[in-house]
Amino acid sequence: MSTSPKNYFEESLAFHLKHHGKLEMVSKISINTREDLSLAYTPGVAAPCLAIEKNPEDAYLYTLKSNTVAVISDGSAVLGLGNIGALAGLPVMEGKCVLFKEFAGVNAFPIILAIQDTEEIIRTIKNIAPTFGGINLEDFSAPRCFEIEERLKAELDIPVMHDDQHGTAIVALAGLINSLKITGKKKEDIKIVINGIGPAGTAILKLFRLYGVEDIVACDSKGILSDSRMDINGEKQKIVTITNPRNISRNLRDAIRGADVFVGVSAPNILGREDIRTMAPDAIIFAMANPIPEIMPDEARAGGARIIATGRSDFSNQLNNVLVFPGIFKWALQYRIRTITDEMKLAAAEALAAYVMSPTEEMIIPNPLDKNVVNVIAESIGKFR
Amino acid sequence: MSTSPKNYFEESLAFHLKHHGKLEMVSKISINTREDLSLAYTPGVAAPCLAIEKNPEDAYLYTLKSNTVAVISDGSAVLGLGNIGALAGLPVMEGKCVLFKEFAGVNAFPIILAIQDTEEIIRTIKNIAPTFGGINLEDFSAPRCFEIEERLKAELDIPVMHDDQHGTAIVALAGLINSLKITGKKKEDIKIVINGIGPAGTAILKLFRLYGVEDIVACDSKGILSDSRMDINGEKQKIVTITNPRNISRNLRDAIRGADVFVGVSAPNILGREDIRTMAPDAIIFAMANPIPEIMPDEARAGGARIIATGRSDFSNQLNNVLVFPGIFKWALQYRIRTITDEMKLAAAEALAAYVMSPTEEMIIPNPLDKNVVNVIAESIGKFR
Repeated sequence: MSTSPKNYFEESLAFHLKHHGKLEMVSKISINTREDLSLAYTPGVAAPCLAIEKNPEDAYLYTLKSNTVAVISDGSAVLGLGNIGALAGLPVMEGKCVLFKEFAGVNAFPIILAIQDTEEIIRTIKNIAPTFGGINLEDFSAPRCFEIEERLKAELDIPVMHDDQHGTAIVALAGLINSLKITGKKKEDIKIVINGIGPAGTAILKLFRLYGVEDIVACDSKGILSDSRMDINGEKQKIVTITNPRNISRNLRDAIRGADVFVGVSAPNILGREDIRTMAPDAIIFAMANPIPEIMPDEARAGGARIIATGRSDFSNQLNNVLVFPGIFKWALQYRIRTITDEMKLAAAEALAAYVMSPTEEMIIPNPLDKNVVNVIAESIGKFR
Repeated sequence: MSTSPKNYFEESLAFHLKHHGKLEMVSKISINTREDLSLAYTPGVAAPCLAIEKNPEDAYLYTLKSNTVAVISDGSAVLGLGNIGALAGLPVMEGKCVLFKEFAGVNAFPIILAIQDTEEIIRTIKNIAPTFGGINLEDFSAPRCFEIEERLKAELDIPVMHDDQHGTAIVALAGLINSLKITGKKKEDIKIVINGIGPAGTAILKLFRLYGVEDIVACDSKGILSDSRMDINGEKQKIVTITNPRNISRNLRDAIRGADVFVGVSAPNILGREDIRTMAPDAIIFAMANPIPEIMPDEARAGGARIIATGRSDFSNQLNNVLVFPGIFKWALQYRIRTITDEMKLAAAEALAAYVMSPTEEMIIPNPLDKNVVNVIAESIGKFR
């Protein structure tokens, strides 16, 4: 088994070149007669316009707003590629839009931004929001992503979600729930280490805490986040207040000694089998760095890990956001949910976990290609209407 | 013949309700296998991302940018409905997007703005421009529309066109060219009155002047624009410098006395047959107010007009922008034209006129439903590459 999976670069380049992008806009009506033109355009179009002018809610009846999401990025943290800029990130945003349509029937359109200033981003998104029924923020770097999402959630009347945070957190929690079932461990008793405190790591630890995990130690590239770290501020300082109850310090290796769960959203190949051996029995490893995980599954297994999940499609237990965002937005739009709450995220993770009827070491999470998963999320969102 | 055409309101409302809008986003690839996912999304999508990061021009090869136009409005001057706001204008913008796809195969997406401040509009459009290969401004009120378009043309590296101005002007000029052929009048000798100095009227008079018409008199709701008008400034003052060579004053009736051509982009039923009788022989009437023209065709004919065109589909000679904007943008995108110049607009009008092989009083302009018209524009744009 090679460390690098097939990267599909050449095929993908040829595919993108052939299609000039992956997404197209299609009309639901053909325009062949004067009647068609009169219905879809003038004079008929004045009717829905006047209805919406009278009652803005009618936009959900007469326009694409009811089923359309913007996938917005400033290109500051694209895939594992870093700040490559919004234009270079466009193929990712288009890909995301494709997944929205294919998995949830939701229309999604990519908006990439020429700017990376927080205030300017918030302002611009608010200015273009009326077209959309929801906003999926994508690939914004931390810590700006937190303020951008919080402000937009507060200031817009449509659902806003930064998928790198919450899509990842929900799928990780679903994986954790089933891993605990398999190993018989209890959320109140386990020790979890989260390595990588970007958008995903931060959201994972917050959601795990909400779920009821009490002992989480967070690490960034300089080591454990603790009271003794003088170099941290802002969001990371807040994280210290909800993690590290044993107040341990030093580095990742100190953190994972005796831990039950390792969650990596960080960098390739930073752990070896000897590190896994220091963990508690029945260790659970979510090595989610893409495309090369923090530790390869065979190596983790050699160290004694019982459950191993990655972000990769060529191993079992693929923790992939596509299990989450299409359903979250589909039902948020369907039910006209204004805000995606923590309760909904917890419920979505639980529903996703429960959808795996008999979880095993090799199947803690549904197959990302299972197109019924989107419906599993419905009740998680719907019951909080 | 009734004054009001069938307005299609009830059918249109039912149609819009049934479809929840007229436009949808469609993926060019189905996602059913891990290979599909790897090609369209991770890890394959990193290949076009890296290519574009290295060479931004490659966005035209690998993304929807190459064939996608934004139809942007702030809802300040929607159809004949006025400042109904952007949300209420969304059905119109969607309709426009439908026409882009149906007539030119161009992907178009509606962006409606929550703001109506000129600077904020310019800024917002610049911020979201990277996704798009071109920008069609729609239903912005005058005089803000002039500054918005000029600034965006100067500050963006993609074609920007305010269709209410230039689409209308090009189709009107095409109609004029054929009307002159039929009547044997010469552009240097004719007297033209343009009534209504909003976006369309302003652009029509500028394009007619460029074409070589020397004697144009412009009127707004208060009368003839002339040196003696103390109540005008800005754009209208500029208009005085290129119109009214005989320096006449007073009102519309004074203007049309002896005129060869009346172009109305103003208000319904403001002229009667007795007004037409005061015009020069073989009078040409473009009564483009929608849905009810400045004078109904039968009334104009009774006054002795020889050629009568309106914006309506239930009379001959329908002056409709759909003859223009799909082709302009299709070829501007195809040929990677950065700026739509006056030369291109003149050439497009001439090509559109020439496409009518044997113009007659009843056919000065192609049928708006003729889907070959889009190709007629190709050379007009292409020859200035």
